This record gives sequence, C-alpha cells and structure tokens, in this order.
Amino acid sequence: MDVISVIRTKRDRGELSPEQIDWVIDAYTRGEVADEQMSALAMAILLNGMNRTEIARWTAAMIASGERMDFSALSRPTADKHSTGGVGDKITLPLAPLVAACGAAVPQLSGRGLGHTGGTLDKLESIPGWRALLSNEEMLHVLDTTGAVICAAGDGLAPADKKLYALRDVTGTVEAIPLIASSIMSKKIAEGTGSLVLDVKVGTGAFMKTIEDARELAATMVGLGTDHGVKTVALLTDMATPLGLTAGNALEVRESVEVLAGGGPADVVELTLALAREMLDAAGLPDADPAKALADGSAMDVWRRMIAAQGGDPDAALPVARERQTITAPASGVLTRLDAYGVGVAAWRLGAGRARKEDPVQAGAGIEIHAKPGDRVTEGQPLLTLHTDTPEKFAYATEALEGTYDIGAAGTAYEATPVVRERIA
Amino acid sequence: MDVISVIRTKRDRGELSPEQIDWVIDAYTRGEVADEQMSALAMAILLNGMNRTEIARWTAAMIASGERMDFSALSRPTADKHSTGGVGDKITLPLAPLVAACGAAVPQLSGRGLGHTGGTLDKLESIPGWRALLSNEEMLHVLDTTGAVICAAGDGLAPADKKLYALRDVTGTVEAIPLIASSIMSKKIAEGTGSLVLDVKVGTGAFMKTIEDARELAATMVGLGTDHGVKTVALLTDMATPLGLTAGNALEVRESVEVLAGGGPADVVELTLALAREMLDAAGLPDADPAKALADGSAMDVWRRMIAAQGGDPDAALPVARERQTITAPASGVLTRLDAYGVGVAAWRLGAGRARKEDPVQAGAGIEIHAKPGDRVTEGQPLLTLHTDTPEKFAYATEALEGTYDIGAAGTAYEATPVVRERIA
Repeated sequence: MDVISVIRTKRDRGELSPEQIDWVIDAYTRGEVADEQMSALAMAILLNGMNRTEIARWTAAMIASGERMDFSALSRPTADKHSTGGVGDKITLPLAPLVAACGAAVPQLSGRGLGHTGGTLDKLESIPGWRALLSNEEMLHVLDTTGAVICAAGDGLAPADKKLYALRDVTGTVEAIPLIASSIMSKKIAEGTGSLVLDVKVGTGAFMKTIEDARELAATMVGLGTDHGVKTVALLTDMATPLGLTAGNALEVRESVEVLAGGGPADVVELTLALAREMLDAAGLPDADPAKALADGSAMDVWRRMIAAQGGDPDAALPVARERQTITAPASGVLTRLDAYGVGVAAWRLGAGRARKEDPVQAGAGIEIHAKPGDRVTEGQPLLTLHTDTPEKFAYATEALEGTYDIGAAGTAYEATPVVRERIA
Repeated sequence: MDVISVIRTKRDRGELSPEQIDWVIDAYTRGEVADEQMSALAMAILLNGMNRTEIARWTAAMIASGERMDFSALSRPTADKHSTGGVGDKITLPLAPLVAACGAAVPQLSGRGLGHTGGTLDKLESIPGWRALLSNEEMLHVLDTTGAVICAAGDGLAPADKKLYALRDVTGTVEAIPLIASSIMSKKIAEGTGSLVLDVKVGTGAFMKTIEDARELAATMVGLGTDHGVKTVALLTDMATPLGLTAGNALEVRESVEVLAGGGPADVVELTLALAREMLDAAGLPDADPAKALADGSAMDVWRRMIAAQGGDPDAALPVARERQTITAPASGVLTRLDAYGVGVAAWRLGAGRARKEDPVQAGAGIEIHAKPGDRVTEGQPLLTLHTDTPEKFAYATEALEGTYDIGAAGTAYEATPVVRERIA
C-alpha cells in the first residue's frame, strides 16, 4: 500500500477500498503519511466526494484510531446531542440538565469555539471555578451523581480526527460533507452513547448555507450512527438569525439560566424543548415531560448540582465586560433581517471568540440583541449592545455589523422561518 | 492576502487573480505558505484547471522566483529543445552537437531520471570523466567554444518550480497539464533561450497517454513560450514503443555515437533530424543541412569537443554491465507490439534508473532491443537482452516485461505509427 496510489484513486474519481482507507488513516495517525499528502487527499475527497460505503469505513477507521468509552454500567439510558454550530447557540447549557431531570444520563463532550461560532466550554468557563477538564473517572462520577456532565473530550478519542481536523482548518478543506460527517460521528460513536440527536444548523451563520447541503449532511450522519448501532435523529434548524438574545460567553450563560428558571427567549425555549423531546424519545423515555421539568425547577436543580460538581459556583456573579456601546435603529418600522453571520463575527471581534486555538477569550464580551426579525422598532431605540474589555475593538466589530440588518416600513409583512425546519430519522 | 482564500478560490472553480498567483508562489518559495497548503492548492488546480491567463501568470511568477540567464552576448542564435520524457529517448545527445554543427548555439540544461524514464545527465555520466555540474562561467565557456553544452540547471533558476515539483512528486499532483506546462516553461524561459522546440511524447511510455492530452499540453506550452517572446514549436512524437534499440545509460550513449557516426536506428535518426530542422528554423537558420552534418562528421567533431570540454574522454571505453540475460521469441511471426512503459520499468528495475533522487544509477544497466514492432521474428531468436551489475534483479525486471510484447502470425499486417505524429506552432 502506498499513499500516492490512494491519492490517485480518489483524484481519478475512483472508490477507495476498505484496505486503502484503513491504511491511510492509520499511517497518517502514526505520521507515516505526511500532512502534505493527507491535504491533497482531503482536497480530492472534497471535490470528488465519497460514497456511503467509503464514508462508513473512513468513520470506522477514525474510531479505531483511539479508545472508546462505555456507559453501559450506568443505570439510566444515555442520550447525547451534537450541534453543527451557530451564533448564540447556547442550547446545550439548559438542554443537558433538562434531559437529565427527565431521567436520561447526558454525557456532553464538548468543544471550544473557533471562528465566528461560540464554544460550549468557553461559555461555561465564564462561571467562576468551573472546570472543563475532567478525568474519565471524574466524568463518570459527575454523570452518575447528577445525571449530566458537560466537559472536554479526552485526547484518546479519535486522535486521527483531531489531527485531520487541524489540517483541514489550514488547507481550505473543511467544507466537505463526507469529512464533516465522519469527523462529528467518529467522536460521538467513540464516546459510546446509546442515542444521539443532531442539531444541523442551516443558514448564513452555519457551515451549511442551504437546506440541500444541510439535508445531505444530516442524512449522512444519521446513516453513520444507525450503521454503528446508535439510535440517531437529526433536526435541521434555522441559523439565518442568532438564537435568542445574546451571543457571547457569560451573556449566554445568563440567558440559559433564565430558560432553566422558566423564562428566556421563545426560540431558545422552543428549540431546547424540541431537542429534549427527541433525546428522551431516542433514549426510550417517550413519556417524560420536559416542559414540566423546566416549569417546576427540577431542570434548574440538576444544573446547580452539575455546575457545583465541576467546581463551579452556580450563585456566583458572572463576569461583565468593562465597556459597552449601543447601536440604535436608524429608522422606525419592522426589523426584517438580522444576519447570524454578521452578529457572530462582531461578537468574535469583540473578544468572545478566538482566531487561533491557543488564544484566550473574554468571558464578558459579546452582543445583546434588543430586537429580533419580525419585531417593530422605533428610530433611535437600541438594536444591539456591544460588550468588550477592549474598547479599541468597537470600530472593528461595528464594521462587521454593516449591512447585517434591514428595517422595513411599518406594516411590512414578515414571514418567520420556523426554528425547526425539518426532521430526518 | 491569505492562503486559505487562494485555495478556496480554485477549489470553488474560480479564477485566481494575478495578485493571488504572485503572492502564493512568492510566499511558498519563502516558506510562508506550508507544503500541506500548496499540495491542497495543487490538487484543486489538477481537478479544476487553470485558464490561459492564470497559467501565464503562474509561469511568470515561477520565473520571477529566481535568476534569469542571458545568452544575448553570444555571436550565434540560441536554440533549445525539451522532451517531456520517454523510454530510450537519447535524442538530446546527438541533437545538441548536430544543431551546433549547423551554426546555432545549443544550451541544454538537463535533468536526471526519476521513475521509468531516463535522464540525459545520467546517460552522459557513464562517459569516464564527464562532469554535469558547471558554474555559469564554465557553461558559457563550453557553449561559446564548442557551440553546445549539456549540463545540470543551476539552483538559481525558478526555485519555486524546484520546490513545487518535489512536492507534486509525493502528493499525486504531477499529472496536471497547467502545472506540467508551467514547470517546463518557467525553467526554459528563465534559461534565456531565443527559440525552443518541444518534443511532446505521447503513448504508454510517456506522461501523456492520449493524443488529446498531448495536444493540450503542447498548445499550452507553445502559448506560454510565445507570450514570453520565445519562438516555440512542438512536435508530438510517438512513445508507444521505445526509441531506438537501447534503454539504459551507457547503452544509449553508444547508440547516440552510432547516429553521430552516420549510422544508428532509423527512428532515432529520423527524430533527431526532424527536431534539428525545427530548431534551426526557429533559430533563423533555415538553410542549414543537418543530414549533411551527420554524414560528413562535423556533428561528431562537435560532440567530441563538447564531451572533452566537460572533462570527458570521448575515446574511453564505456562501462559494461557484469551480467546479461536474454529473452527469446516464444513463437515465429511478426512483432506487433513492444510496450515502451514495460521496457522502461524493466530497465529501471535492472538499475538504469532510480526510485529516489539520492539513489545512484548503474552506468551499464539497461535493455538491448533486438526486434522492433513490424519486424519478423523466429521462435527462439533473441528479443531483448537485459544488462545489470545486480543479477538478482533479473527476475524482478522480467516480471515487468510480462505481457509487454505481442507476436502475430507470419504475414500479419502491421501499420507503423509515424515517429512524428503532429506539429503545433
């Protein structure tokens, strides 16, 4: 087996054999296949595709590159969720304790933000004392005693994916559906969950800009999960506009706690409940009532125990940015568009996100949203409040917001996009 | 300017801007763009192509990455030839002194063999004492005093191409017409020749397997030369069967000397004369008579002076391999096929070529051909003689020859492919 013949096979639109896939993933993980060879192969895959058989084998080879976790000793059924990432997507925070309060065990191995989408761990780290890094034993202990855990994935899970993801990030080969699907699913399957609900975002603020691409990605991932014995369902959800009224770490934690307290923005509550119902169904708990668990405070109780079990103080004051600036409505009328991508980039520029893996993030930075598409606005009223510790960033962030919202004349008809657009099982 | 946006442009079938091309070639030469990024771009170029404007700029950027030579001080017009490489292609050896004997100056900056095609410098190095590495001053001196020089290209010419070629070799991105054309032409234009004749090989033993691909490559290179003020012509020539009756270093030198002595195989003589006429025409010497210069010994005189000027002894005995093995005809009839690729691989396996740049070659190794397609053969007569210093290689080489020749019943009609198939100017 040699790498040039593997590259040529895909370059010339052939099908990679199981042996070629197993060999190239293993040799790349061991360093025998060089980065410049793998990036040429990744570009050939991006441009020429892989069929379902190839994607399944590629995913299996990445799973086999590392260790697998096992939750079968837990007394409760496990349920897991993965979002492909969006702006203001804090759903994991209220969702994990909510589903745990309804009887499932929820192990959420999460990541940090890169680019314009935020990371779950970055958000939770704005809570004083909270730790993302747990040993496997600690993780199982938190999960067993509170019902939910949100922590960083260990280095041992799918190391081939870790290496390949970093390479794709610098070689323009991120946007390949077979590679995105196998990257997500190899980690989720290696985690050992019994069921998985995928939140596939579609719109300007998501990787998938069109419903067709989102459908293809969702169907590919559902197929991969099913093939590996994981009960998998996907919801395609809107990411043309930010979720909720905040984008930024501590700002999103505050909004999540509002949802757990029975309040919070309608779209966040709707999506949290829709995903909770799917997870509980997939976990074999179709009779659970997540709306009740939000209303009666039982989800909030799990949240407080889960945060405390990872060293966090659920009662501590959250960090607040040192400086604020408000953007006001330039006219009266109806807000007809507020673009997720522009808001995401602006929050990132304010300090909520990072350009490189090793950069720090500002806990208090981000954007508060005072009006959502469909809302009536009055000239001069606040539209957005920008938060940062580094006020020299205001101009740079404001630039990203130019052209990201439209205000129509009063009485303009506005047709809302539903939060959940499609379901694929 | 950033490399990801350049990669994405080509990945998404866009046209690279002049600024993008200049920047990426310069940044890659300086090491700012990494190998894994350039290989992803090379694969995107291979699969999505470049138009004529892009290829011209890419070539110009590679020329600009290094120094340019200048032959304008010479009293004679310069003429240069480049072959895309084939099996038994020793044409440069008789051709350079022949064209010099007819009045042009012939600077042949040549390369070494890699894979199944031989290298001109490897062949000449089988002559005792002969040196391929000359300083620029030495090169100009040999050229000025003998009319011809065949030597290694200096490191200063198109360093971007040198680096990119090595990368393409290990990433499955060699077979891209825009990259092949710009690689060849950037070196040839940087050399500063006034005219250039391209020998574009087509057939199993060549990079271009089909006449359509060969035509596209030839037209691309002729266009590039013309755009840079170099009078450029291309011949598409047959490489379905080896050229002449030898493949291997000293074996091919011997055959070349036969041609210079007025003898030699008909196909080698025919192609040498055809290329000589094109070079002399392009150099503004249409009245020269290369056939006469072969017959009257004047080409041989230039050969002897050129070899001696580079330290070689034109009268020294050439190295002979320690061991031989003969392959005989399994039946009587007409030889209808002798495959160039198979013979090239077998000669390479016998020690005539190298697998890695740093490997040595055997001067005496190679293959003698006793019958060419169209010849009548008798069962048991020698077809091929294999030469090597390492007889343990015979079995491995013989394996490469399996299925590479066909013998038809006596009287089988055989239609010869002409040596020169097309001309593109």
